[in-house]
Amino acid sequence: MERLQEQIDFIMELDKIKKIVRQTPLSDGSRKENDAEHSWHMAVMCLVLAEYANEPIDMAHTLGMILMHDVVEIDAGDTYAYDTAGNETKRERELSAADRIFHLLPEGQAEKLRQLWDEFEEGKTPEARFANALDKIQPILLNHASHGVSWEEHQIHLAQILKRNEKTADGTRAVWEYARNLIDENVREGHILP
Amino acid sequence: MERLQEQIDFIMELDKIKKIVRQTPLSDGSRKENDAEHSWHMAVMCLVLAEYANEPIDMAHTLGMILMHDVVEIDAGDTYAYDTAGNETKRERELSAADRIFHLLPEGQAEKLRQLWDEFEEGKTPEARFANALDKIQPILLNHASHGVSWEEHQIHLAQILKRNEKTADGTRAVWEYARNLIDENVREGHILP
Repeated sequence: MERLQEQIDFIMELDKIKKIVRQTPLSDGSRKENDAEHSWHMAVMCLVLAEYANEPIDMAHTLGMILMHDVVEIDAGDTYAYDTAGNETKRERELSAADRIFHLLPEGQAEKLRQLWDEFEEGKTPEARFANALDKIQPILLNHASHGVSWEEHQIHLAQILKRNEKTADGTRAVWEYARNLIDENVREGHILP
Repeated sequence: MERLQEQIDFIMELDKIKKIVRQTPLSDGSRKENDAEHSWHMAVMCLVLAEYANEPIDMAHTLGMILMHDVVEIDAGDTYAYDTAGNETKRERELSAADRIFHLLPEGQAEKLRQLWDEFEEGKTPEARFANALDKIQPILLNHASHGVSWEEHQIHLAQILKRNEKTADGTRAVWEYARNLIDENVREGHILP
């Protein structure tokens, strides 16, 4: 029973991710989404778009990574993609968070789930490359659908988006090409600065 | 490109699930959760608690079912577990929704994902039994953590909860036993009517 209690403690701690708000709006622009919603949406994308991964991926493994990839933000908060100062301290804050949060789990399982998070962060396996690509493409879809309100709010330049997406094609060339076209459309429409 | 566009249309349609609010509160009781958050939380439970499934389960298959199980509520809305009138028309409303929503996808994939939803609804495979059990246990954990506000608000009786959970032990005896203890505790504390 102690083992199950530790697992439930972890599951209940993760409930807090529903309160970590991101900069990305819902597609209708009515409010910003949170990390739980974002992770669910990425998982759906993985299920539907797996055929476009550059390399074959293991579905269960990739979904596990996606489900876990943002849990450190419970302690570290969401660092906005284009927040330069925030991104300088992000890695350190997230490492401390990972140490605390994954170790709520029983020994063995703690390491296994922590490894999923590490693998996503390192981005070196086919599964991690695809999951990272989805993490970048999901907000582009939502920003486009909501007519670029978030890009406009933060006065984002095309060059910033392209820099952030340097490795996105490494996960999926086809879906990145689709997203790239949306970005160009938003530059033409003035939602992204040229 | 037409195939990818249909898949993106489905993914963006599913964004609406973030606005389908359930009766279950977040663990801190601050607001009610939505279907995307609930599905993410269930998927995390599946990842962490799979060892307690009564029968061995295929992880990718179970996660796929969990990710899809509530998408019909985009059209049909969330029917509260203890809404008798709503539950009489629920099946019909959800079938129409499934017909529309899954058929946004390209042929072949539409049927494949629709089948995941059907399998969850039928509850006859080990994966479906476990996923259905998690769907019932997740709100019990949240209701307990938030001191039964939702049970109190709707004046729920123990007998109603037990009836709703008639099959929960078929998916996982161990986690159901844990949840059953929480229910008894909430009866003793007056959050659930005896």
